[in-house]
Amino acid sequence: MVLHRSWLESANAPEGEFPLNNLPYGVFSVGESDLRCGVAIGDRIVDATGLEAAGFLRADPDADVLDAPYWNDFMELGRAAWSRYRAALASMLAEGADEVVQDQIITHSVPMKDAALHMPFRVSEFTDFYSSRHHATNVGTMFRGAENALPPNWLHIPIGYNGRASSVVVSGTPVTRPHGQIMGPDDATPHFAPSARFDIELEMGAIVGQASDGPISVAEAFDNIFGYVLLNDWSARDIQAWEYQPLGPFQSKATATTISPWIVTAAALEPFRSSTPAREKPLLDYLTEPGPMLYDIALEVGLTPDGGSETVIAETNYNEMYYSAAQQLAHHSSSGCPMRVGDLLGSGTISGPKRENRGSLLELSWGGKEPITLDTGETRSFVEDGDTLTLRGHAQGSGYRVGFGACSGTVRPKR
Amino acid sequence: MVLHRSWLESANAPEGEFPLNNLPYGVFSVGESDLRCGVAIGDRIVDATGLEAAGFLRADPDADVLDAPYWNDFMELGRAAWSRYRAALASMLAEGADEVVQDQIITHSVPMKDAALHMPFRVSEFTDFYSSRHHATNVGTMFRGAENALPPNWLHIPIGYNGRASSVVVSGTPVTRPHGQIMGPDDATPHFAPSARFDIELEMGAIVGQASDGPISVAEAFDNIFGYVLLNDWSARDIQAWEYQPLGPFQSKATATTISPWIVTAAALEPFRSSTPAREKPLLDYLTEPGPMLYDIALEVGLTPDGGSETVIAETNYNEMYYSAAQQLAHHSSSGCPMRVGDLLGSGTISGPKRENRGSLLELSWGGKEPITLDTGETRSFVEDGDTLTLRGHAQGSGYRVGFGACSGTVRPKR
Repeated sequence: MVLHRSWLESANAPEGEFPLNNLPYGVFSVGESDLRCGVAIGDRIVDATGLEAAGFLRADPDADVLDAPYWNDFMELGRAAWSRYRAALASMLAEGADEVVQDQIITHSVPMKDAALHMPFRVSEFTDFYSSRHHATNVGTMFRGAENALPPNWLHIPIGYNGRASSVVVSGTPVTRPHGQIMGPDDATPHFAPSARFDIELEMGAIVGQASDGPISVAEAFDNIFGYVLLNDWSARDIQAWEYQPLGPFQSKATATTISPWIVTAAALEPFRSSTPAREKPLLDYLTEPGPMLYDIALEVGLTPDGGSETVIAETNYNEMYYSAAQQLAHHSSSGCPMRVGDLLGSGTISGPKRENRGSLLELSWGGKEPITLDTGETRSFVEDGDTLTLRGHAQGSGYRVGFGACSGTVRPKR
Repeated sequence: MVLHRSWLESANAPEGEFPLNNLPYGVFSVGESDLRCGVAIGDRIVDATGLEAAGFLRADPDADVLDAPYWNDFMELGRAAWSRYRAALASMLAEGADEVVQDQIITHSVPMKDAALHMPFRVSEFTDFYSSRHHATNVGTMFRGAENALPPNWLHIPIGYNGRASSVVVSGTPVTRPHGQIMGPDDATPHFAPSARFDIELEMGAIVGQASDGPISVAEAFDNIFGYVLLNDWSARDIQAWEYQPLGPFQSKATATTISPWIVTAAALEPFRSSTPAREKPLLDYLTEPGPMLYDIALEVGLTPDGGSETVIAETNYNEMYYSAAQQLAHHSSSGCPMRVGDLLGSGTISGPKRENRGSLLELSWGGKEPITLDTGETRSFVEDGDTLTLRGHAQGSGYRVGFGACSGTVRPKR
């Protein structure tokens, strides 16, 4: 877990998000340019599409897999190609690289500050899980009472539901407060209105990089995951409470899901693997992990009112999960469900044991009964119009960090 | 509602499924040929890809939208193009068409019996609803008791959940009995085993042919629907019962969903429009239908044991639905959820008032307590290995039918 030094000095900053150890994959444009595949290093973005076209760095000798505004075709190549590409790019960026190579990289890169970032991959389908013990207990207590908080299946199954891929957007995309059917506790009939309990969910997203056609093991699932993003699953709690029985959340979760712009690869996170907690009940064999498959990733949520300054409202860690993404993916495939390159698996809201570790406003304000106070003195039970919500995350090495870039969205008033 | 006669005599048979009034869209191959877009007429398939390439019939003057193994690019063109294409093709196939035109069609068509049929469109995302009053009441009674049968939201919302697009297959594709977590009523812990209560669901599927980025009205939704297919949403009831609380069905519905091979267009079904039943509770404005948006389509399910003969086990009608596909789609968009060309909306199981009108074995055998007897004398509570389940449907005109082709699947034993 030591810094791999780059000749690009900005990549060596101890608190920078994009050292040579990271090399995350994104999609960028500059001005009116086409969308291109890029790799973040320090304060620059390497133009991977340009390097491929110039023949300096090719993922596939025979096909231009990066001549596209997404990394899906690259993922299709498989793990051996992922490793070769990462190693080749790392050697070009490492301290001591040939000056000719350095010149190529400078020619085929842009300052990050000049670039707009776009969806890094085409989402095939989106599944959202519910795998944090503290989150499930908190929400279950509010929705069904303390005695029914944790559903009887929860300790046996990584519970999940299919979400809506078309609603996944990249950080920076505004989010419009949704309308929906709402039935308040004192209402005789439902009404159609803007959500008054619009919320965030702090999650990690795992990206499937290899397809499968039948059931796969947890070990195979781990190998099939290409990388991770931060993920904010915007949720309209009042719409959810009325619609979710008996078939689960639907329109309450369909307005938008924001992801961070960089895919941090499983390879970059390898040094930070950590174990799921001890099982409270034994798992069935098909869900048993052969080794540590979670990651130690510090996470936080910032809330910035319109024109105001940011307050960090929650801090937690990805290793609070009860189930890893590999377990979720293995379960997802257990019925024979075909999984495809570009499938996105949300971890579920990640909450820790303390109040300040809760990953949603629903939990932080305990259903609105205990509003939180921002540094500005304002209070919040749920998200207000003009608020910007920003997720951040990083794995901490010795003198360096592997970061994800901000996962941010500003809420616009209803249409 | 009278037959439009074709010079192709097989298209004029009173009980044929593919008269000139129909002209459904599919994808076919002959032998080792590439997959091509085709249109069913009588006992032949018109090679729409070939007609386009030859310049005889083009949907778009500037682009080869049918040079693809799916109709999505055609759908993207929009309603005006759909109408023009249908009118042009109909005139080429109508009685009295020029002999040169007839020769072109014969050259660019194949006997249906020689062709293999494939998925007619690329499924973007799959949503399954729960909109038949009798089905919801039957299943609710079995899962939650008679007093909680119909959830309180059911008469206000077309309840639905996101399904799994990757699991949608075309008629004729074998279906493998899934494994999953099962927790029997007398079990202390769940076990992982092949489903012992594997079932069918008789549904219609509506295909979104025009994208939308925000909420749309019911009238707009109706206009955005390109066409319909028969749909069998295979369901593992034992897996479903254990997993579905609190976030809805997941792996129980992810093994396979079979659709019929021909997209019957909304245009072809226009003469058969019918109304949803009287409202038991008033609907909110955003769900109110401006006119009849269901269709009178007779539906049936046949069960054929391995090596045996078929028994028709259920007969019902699409007009048993409480909500139309247009209402479902309008609700689906209400939160701002982007809808895309190729989205598939399952109606939910269509059951009628009588036992023989029930669209699933769960209902027909009342959870296995009242097995049905086949014509062969065998009984069934759920689907057995080797069984072939076949859905059929048609709208009845005066002396002609608009049919869908069979929606069939044979169950293979567990892996």
